[in-house]
Amino acid sequence: MARRKKVYEGKAKILYEGPEPGTLIQYFKDEAAAGQPEVQPSAVEGRGVLNNRLSEFFMAGLNSIGVPTHFIRRLNMREQLVRMAEIIPLQVVVRNFAAGELSTRLGIPEGMPLPRPIVEYYYKDERLNDPMVSEEHIVAFGWANQQDLDDMIALALRVNDFLSGVMMGVGIRLADFRIEVGRIWEGDFMRLIVADEISPDNCRLWDMRGLAEREGTAGAPVEPGPLADVYTELARRLGVLPSNVTHAPKPTLIN
Amino acid sequence: MARRKKVYEGKAKILYEGPEPGTLIQYFKDEAAAGQPEVQPSAVEGRGVLNNRLSEFFMAGLNSIGVPTHFIRRLNMREQLVRMAEIIPLQVVVRNFAAGELSTRLGIPEGMPLPRPIVEYYYKDERLNDPMVSEEHIVAFGWANQQDLDDMIALALRVNDFLSGVMMGVGIRLADFRIEVGRIWEGDFMRLIVADEISPDNCRLWDMRGLAEREGTAGAPVEPGPLADVYTELARRLGVLPSNVTHAPKPTLIN
Repeated sequence: MARRKKVYEGKAKILYEGPEPGTLIQYFKDEAAAGQPEVQPSAVEGRGVLNNRLSEFFMAGLNSIGVPTHFIRRLNMREQLVRMAEIIPLQVVVRNFAAGELSTRLGIPEGMPLPRPIVEYYYKDERLNDPMVSEEHIVAFGWANQQDLDDMIALALRVNDFLSGVMMGVGIRLADFRIEVGRIWEGDFMRLIVADEISPDNCRLWDMRGLAEREGTAGAPVEPGPLADVYTELARRLGVLPSNVTHAPKPTLIN
Repeated sequence: MARRKKVYEGKAKILYEGPEPGTLIQYFKDEAAAGQPEVQPSAVEGRGVLNNRLSEFFMAGLNSIGVPTHFIRRLNMREQLVRMAEIIPLQVVVRNFAAGELSTRLGIPEGMPLPRPIVEYYYKDERLNDPMVSEEHIVAFGWANQQDLDDMIALALRVNDFLSGVMMGVGIRLADFRIEVGRIWEGDFMRLIVADEISPDNCRLWDMRGLAEREGTAGAPVEPGPLADVYTELARRLGVLPSNVTHAPKPTLIN
């Protein structure tokens, strides 16, 4: 079998040429992505295996409700087959609660619910540390046009409704998350799809489970906390991995 | 304490005047609603208690992501405080998979995924057995105007994204559901909100848990089945009731 051609290697993922035109193989490493100030700790054994599974869960779920994503199918422990897309060089962030950079920048206490979900854009450039940009910047520099922006907002808000639901179902609050968006062509028709991954690496998750009980006994509100080992815990609650799997077995490569 | 004034009594619920103008108290009985051909069995002990809790869970969740509902807060085991709304006399149904009346009417096998979510309207009239109607009927008879319909579709699809997510998070497929929509006025501004209840009585739910494992061992796809005792099982999976509560304690009345 011929050696696969590497298309791209980042800190957290490798992309290989896929078996058919217009496809790629996305390989999940254990390292955290670079240039992402609001992520989980950088070294977690088996992170790639769990993120592969979790991203499959969310992307397949989005596909099933008609929110288009690049995900086609999972191939093995660390790899999934995805559609090749022209990535728009933005991180699209949706925030439901104040946290992280928004709290710092605007002086809003962490944990405060926002009046409505707020969509932000960050220009993907590691050397610049992914600076926040406005729609004006995006259109002026040609990264996307106004129609793309409208479509991106609609896409991001649908992802937010769905993902908030999934998390709420398992006792977790989705404070914020970010996605990447890509363009694909079907004949002459272009559409935007969710690309990259959806995993704890790009979601800020707060554990709400037991909060009501704790309030009940203590008589005072208890702040939700971040999930300990969010990868394993989320996978366990969503039932995407048997509860006894906490570390990643050796990856099976397909070549 | 003065006896509360009953505003409406149906088979499944009673509405009382609320403590403040513009509010109502919604009391959940154990009986299934009338004129609803696609519901759960009619006699389930404790159904009202669980539906009160489950509807709270879904409506509060929708409120929290900015989808407006009539729900204000739960008062006790069987009652919740809601906003008074002018109910549009339609059942708004969203279908993700063919089932029930759609399968019968159009000859589509039960369980087949639909090309996209399909929104249907049924005119609320028990004597007529809630007949399906089109947008033409609705506008012509003045039940809602075109703007209301556009807003209702947007509302119903947001509920669908969120509810599909919640269910998927706990291993359940949301085949279809129905909501009622009402109008409320805030000064001169009218908006549409989700009214009535969201519970297993108006959701068709298929259990997907264990399906992958069963496929794995049997080597053939296994059809998802309806949840046995859907009220208790859903409440348990969503963590809205302790797992040992399977029957309803006596209701606590507030008057």
